[in-house]
Amino acid sequence: MERIKPHTLSGFMELTPKKQALMEHITDTIKRVYSLYGFTPLDTPVIESADVLLAKGGGETEKQIYRFTKGDSDLALRFDLTVPLAKYVAMNYAELAFPFRRYQIGKVYRGERAQRGRFREFYQADIDIIGDGELSIMNEAEIPSIIYRLFTELGLTRFVIRVNNRKLLTGFYDMLGLSEKAGDIMRTVDKLEKIGHDKVMAILTGDLDISAGDANEILGFISITGTNAQVLSALEAYRGRNATFDMGYEELATVAGYLADFGVPEENFALDLTIARGLDYYTGTVYETQITGHPEVGSVCSGGRYDDLAGYYTDRKLPGVGISIGLTRLFFILDDVGLLSDDLPTAPADALILPMTDDMSHSVALATALRQRGIRTQIYSEPKKFKARMAYANRLGVPFVAILGEDEIAAGAVSVKDMSTGAQERVSVNDAAGYISDALSRRPVARPIKE
Amino acid sequence: MERIKPHTLSGFMELTPKKQALMEHITDTIKRVYSLYGFTPLDTPVIESADVLLAKGGGETEKQIYRFTKGDSDLALRFDLTVPLAKYVAMNYAELAFPFRRYQIGKVYRGERAQRGRFREFYQADIDIIGDGELSIMNEAEIPSIIYRLFTELGLTRFVIRVNNRKLLTGFYDMLGLSEKAGDIMRTVDKLEKIGHDKVMAILTGDLDISAGDANEILGFISITGTNAQVLSALEAYRGRNATFDMGYEELATVAGYLADFGVPEENFALDLTIARGLDYYTGTVYETQITGHPEVGSVCSGGRYDDLAGYYTDRKLPGVGISIGLTRLFFILDDVGLLSDDLPTAPADALILPMTDDMSHSVALATALRQRGIRTQIYSEPKKFKARMAYANRLGVPFVAILGEDEIAAGAVSVKDMSTGAQERVSVNDAAGYISDALSRRPVARPIKE
Repeated sequence: MERIKPHTLSGFMELTPKKQALMEHITDTIKRVYSLYGFTPLDTPVIESADVLLAKGGGETEKQIYRFTKGDSDLALRFDLTVPLAKYVAMNYAELAFPFRRYQIGKVYRGERAQRGRFREFYQADIDIIGDGELSIMNEAEIPSIIYRLFTELGLTRFVIRVNNRKLLTGFYDMLGLSEKAGDIMRTVDKLEKIGHDKVMAILTGDLDISAGDANEILGFISITGTNAQVLSALEAYRGRNATFDMGYEELATVAGYLADFGVPEENFALDLTIARGLDYYTGTVYETQITGHPEVGSVCSGGRYDDLAGYYTDRKLPGVGISIGLTRLFFILDDVGLLSDDLPTAPADALILPMTDDMSHSVALATALRQRGIRTQIYSEPKKFKARMAYANRLGVPFVAILGEDEIAAGAVSVKDMSTGAQERVSVNDAAGYISDALSRRPVARPIKE
Repeated sequence: MERIKPHTLSGFMELTPKKQALMEHITDTIKRVYSLYGFTPLDTPVIESADVLLAKGGGETEKQIYRFTKGDSDLALRFDLTVPLAKYVAMNYAELAFPFRRYQIGKVYRGERAQRGRFREFYQADIDIIGDGELSIMNEAEIPSIIYRLFTELGLTRFVIRVNNRKLLTGFYDMLGLSEKAGDIMRTVDKLEKIGHDKVMAILTGDLDISAGDANEILGFISITGTNAQVLSALEAYRGRNATFDMGYEELATVAGYLADFGVPEENFALDLTIARGLDYYTGTVYETQITGHPEVGSVCSGGRYDDLAGYYTDRKLPGVGISIGLTRLFFILDDVGLLSDDLPTAPADALILPMTDDMSHSVALATALRQRGIRTQIYSEPKKFKARMAYANRLGVPFVAILGEDEIAAGAVSVKDMSTGAQERVSVNDAAGYISDALSRRPVARPIKE
């Protein structure tokens, strides 16, 4: 038979079983936390009609899109989960209760240039809250608590949710009469950390033709830092000069004001006037999340408030707020910087039964009893030597091995070996499920991230 | 702005939130049951290199495949989960411990002619156990218990797992000297229910040129029915004439013999000599699963034993046994025949908090406390009238509404309304989480299928 060399495409993540188990644990945690905040799961097709997916058209994204024809149909693979959401809400408007809170975890596709840590197929894990015509600021205030809870449950403690409000920025540039240049200014100022104060100043006063006074004012404004109280207090000084700015201030103060009740410690939160989230799409609160000590990683969870989710499909005003996690990239990064935990059990089974007799009916009955108690159980039924069986147990990393030989069967018992200690104990068959179940429940809770 | 009419492609399932919640419940149940039997989760790309995916080549499948180019790459979307598994095992052989038990639930793509109940994008939910060179018959014996457990947990009781063994069939036709025609015979005999005894007889003796005596023997053989004991006893009569037949008999007897220990009631199991599973791929035990009273639905879970998983990629002999559920089709069918339960909670939250004051800090603190206890909680923060808020609660179907007005806040309490009974009770804020949590735990366990 002619053989084909099996390979996986570059830019497509495919994990070993142990890493996949960690990935599943992370995905399950995200689902659980999103559910805890009242989001409903949604699933949309990976393939959409190209005219629907590219309604917004143009831009960098379009070049990266996987687009092809099948029969007469012009098709494309989704490149994010927001456009499919917009389509879904516009199509199903009458069926939905607003605010509509949905989460979606799914694969998206971008034909980026292949390089380390860049993926062409990757999971996004999104939540969005969509209002019908209007949406309370409280929804924006709630988002940091979801991010906080999520990363905490994953095992991360050293992270900061950075929050800003686009109305503050828009209002501020309006005050200076620089509204038209606001986009260019924000893009420039965004490079501050990368290129430094002097080069930013040079671009502002040179390329953008802004007066030295205004440029200084801009750099002064975006360098406001400190505790929430300090930042808000510094911003107070600008109030009363521009309605949009004042609205942004109120919103930011509201978001910061509810933090404690939402259970978010101030150390995991920062008001940061440099956060703009590029796109013109966002209109209110914007979010980024950084892992402390890993500035090279960038934001691992970002999003914000927008006013018009589905303008390309409907004339209804559908404002919303949402965040997105690039899950595949996050997993790659956590692995890369050594933050994935070794403590989390990744074995496919809690117990491996080794039948030492030809008639395996006692082993089968034991497996059935263990499974009835919710213990993930595998029977090793290959006719191998004991040593090979134990080697298999070790490779899987199963916590317990249950040995059933003639002696055990005669005694109505089973020998249970704790693979972490090596201790072996003979337990009556009827007690085996309880014994293993209790031992498993005593194990410390492990999280996928370990700092 | 020019508007595009939002639409979803025909043959692509996209569910309303309530149905999606049911679908998630079914998917989670499948994952849990597969995990209970010691299968590890696997995730492979949706896109593969066309040469890898089509290594086997030809046939009906190839025409249906979504295949396209991106840059210089000839790509295709996976059309099942077996070929990606074969690729994965061949590529990662050295990393895996055998038997390798994996489950995968993922979308696959086939450009079938669009018609009701046919999907171009659909989930498959597969398990496979792959051996290295050999694989014990016990793995084949275990499969019916997994199918039984799964459908039972989904809420189905009236179903039958039909089991046969390909060696029995191969051996039987060999006895009659009809090996060369075995494929044609099985395809003909497979139509028995559809076209009737006489037409089958006519094809066998006419088109296939089989003697009337042999044709009668064939029809007699495949009409052997009864309890497991009766079928095995009838098969006894053929033993000793053909080694392959005898091996098939032993295997079938072993599979049937362990049923009780695996916890499978005989009423959910039938030895059925008409099951052949078309393909030449299968070499041992084969499985189909039928919903009783719905013969029009066909098999909802099928599979079998095969000897050569990855011959197109490697010269290692990798035998296996696996089953596959066409999950999207199963969901469609359950909905269509009215088997989806209305009892299963599909609300995105267990509790909806209604803040009746401008300062929502008490409501936020309550939400945080409820979520801390694992209660899925949403705050309704839009400035709507009470009636509109309750209408929202009703549309979502949340079991509990927690009302926090000035009176409640002054009393350190919250009014909890049980939406199923309409009863409202004032509970202290500190007791609210326990109160709701207890009430939720008293609710009867609901399953996604209700007969």
